[in-house]
Amino acid sequence: MEKHISGTTGLFTLLGTPVGHSGSPAMYNFSFKKQGLDYAYMAFDVKKEQMPQAIDALKLFKVRGSNVTMPCKSVASTLVDDLSPAAKIIGAINVIVNNDGKLTGHITDGIGFVRNLKENGVDIKGKNIVVIGAGGAATAIQVQVALDGAKSIAIFNQDDEFFENAKETKSKLKDETPNVKVDVYPLSDKGLLKEKIENADILVNATIVGMKPLDVQSLVDKSMLRSDLIVADTVYNPLKTKLIEDAEEVGAKAIPGKGMLLWQGAEAYKLFTGKEMPTDEYQAYEKEQAKI
Amino acid sequence: MEKHISGTTGLFTLLGTPVGHSGSPAMYNFSFKKQGLDYAYMAFDVKKEQMPQAIDALKLFKVRGSNVTMPCKSVASTLVDDLSPAAKIIGAINVIVNNDGKLTGHITDGIGFVRNLKENGVDIKGKNIVVIGAGGAATAIQVQVALDGAKSIAIFNQDDEFFENAKETKSKLKDETPNVKVDVYPLSDKGLLKEKIENADILVNATIVGMKPLDVQSLVDKSMLRSDLIVADTVYNPLKTKLIEDAEEVGAKAIPGKGMLLWQGAEAYKLFTGKEMPTDEYQAYEKEQAKI
Repeated sequence: MEKHISGTTGLFTLLGTPVGHSGSPAMYNFSFKKQGLDYAYMAFDVKKEQMPQAIDALKLFKVRGSNVTMPCKSVASTLVDDLSPAAKIIGAINVIVNNDGKLTGHITDGIGFVRNLKENGVDIKGKNIVVIGAGGAATAIQVQVALDGAKSIAIFNQDDEFFENAKETKSKLKDETPNVKVDVYPLSDKGLLKEKIENADILVNATIVGMKPLDVQSLVDKSMLRSDLIVADTVYNPLKTKLIEDAEEVGAKAIPGKGMLLWQGAEAYKLFTGKEMPTDEYQAYEKEQAKI
Repeated sequence: MEKHISGTTGLFTLLGTPVGHSGSPAMYNFSFKKQGLDYAYMAFDVKKEQMPQAIDALKLFKVRGSNVTMPCKSVASTLVDDLSPAAKIIGAINVIVNNDGKLTGHITDGIGFVRNLKENGVDIKGKNIVVIGAGGAATAIQVQVALDGAKSIAIFNQDDEFFENAKETKSKLKDETPNVKVDVYPLSDKGLLKEKIENADILVNATIVGMKPLDVQSLVDKSMLRSDLIVADTVYNPLKTKLIEDAEEVGAKAIPGKGMLLWQGAEAYKLFTGKEMPTDEYQAYEKEQAKI
């Protein structure tokens, strides 16, 4: 069934820069078409300082919803009318839903991460989790696993500008999720990292290490991994990072980053349309396209 | 060949209100697809007072071009960076072209009218023309036929608020096209109308008389028509107005309004893309759709 754009077709957008190579338009438009929804999804290159005007334009054009990507996720959270609980804590959004002119900001990075684990048979509840990283994706994951009932979160990060982020996340979570033990450690302390991983159920790399051109590296020595550890990466290019390969080699459950990307998009789709995204069909279609 | 919307797909818009039932999205998207152009065309309901913000949004989102419809055509002409010669005279636009952030306004209603006559074998050059009406479409036609070398234009209009428009058009054309004789007459003077039609090559109805629910009426008595007169209507719903039926009955060349609608869109398409719109294919497709 093919849906053509008509005078009543609703628009969804992606705002950020650069967006030209984003896979989101293909994914959402495929899904709209598959489910017979009268929507179109388009990407617009928007700089941080243009976001106030872009938000006005979303209202003016009655855009149904929008994804927000780098570098506009933080500023966007200050421009919408309301925020989801996770977005409020994180101070960044990747999804805007327009309900009759009232814009609500959400962040689905963490939800997508948790959903991806669930799709791989892993429940976050009651788990001890080590998360390496303190950037945007890392923070979203830390906040979401805390909201979803993790037992403890050990955050490791380099002693860089993001280290303060991690401390802030810890302080916010102390208020929001007092039952979750959150600690922040310097990544340089390899002994401590080893110890925390030994006591963890789940290890997460939420840094860009493992991504091209850093794809031969891993922040975690293979010797720290074990077969009953769950190892998740947020990096999806390459599909299998060094960390994921190491995890597979020691027999651990290894969960690559591609699924998180898919599911954060699917969670946005659900917020946009109220429907589950046809993820299986889209992945099959994507595979087919890759062959051409 | 099917083009999907990607991160680099360019947007064209229709601005005005109401736009939900506009046929333009279907027509332009069909044409983009047919010619393998990576564009999408969407309609946005925008009020007159929202046009300044909408024009800003066109620039922000690097929208490639836009159509403008009622009631925003006049205000839009005051908001763009440059105007075509006809748009400058008329003070209204239905097309905006975005060249790297510089917006130029055009009006293709008159061009579409002239093109439609040409497609029907009628050249406007040197002709004596009677145009009934002084609204937006009427003015666009009067200015364009003057620019394109008509010999004389007799404008007839009711003694209403638009009568002043007609006088203004006459005064502007006196400056812009001094070789064209332009006169304005009250429509109530049927004797004068009869006389001017007798001396005319082409008679144009550019009022809404003939359109539903005024579709049983014509402003011109059938007795004023003759077989060597060319009779054009701007009304396209119904496809054949009473005037067009009367013209056919006396054996005149009768040119209904549908073609003007098509060609004003096709001229906009040429301004947008630099290409001729695949009008034959679109009309065949439209006919097929109407059967479903």
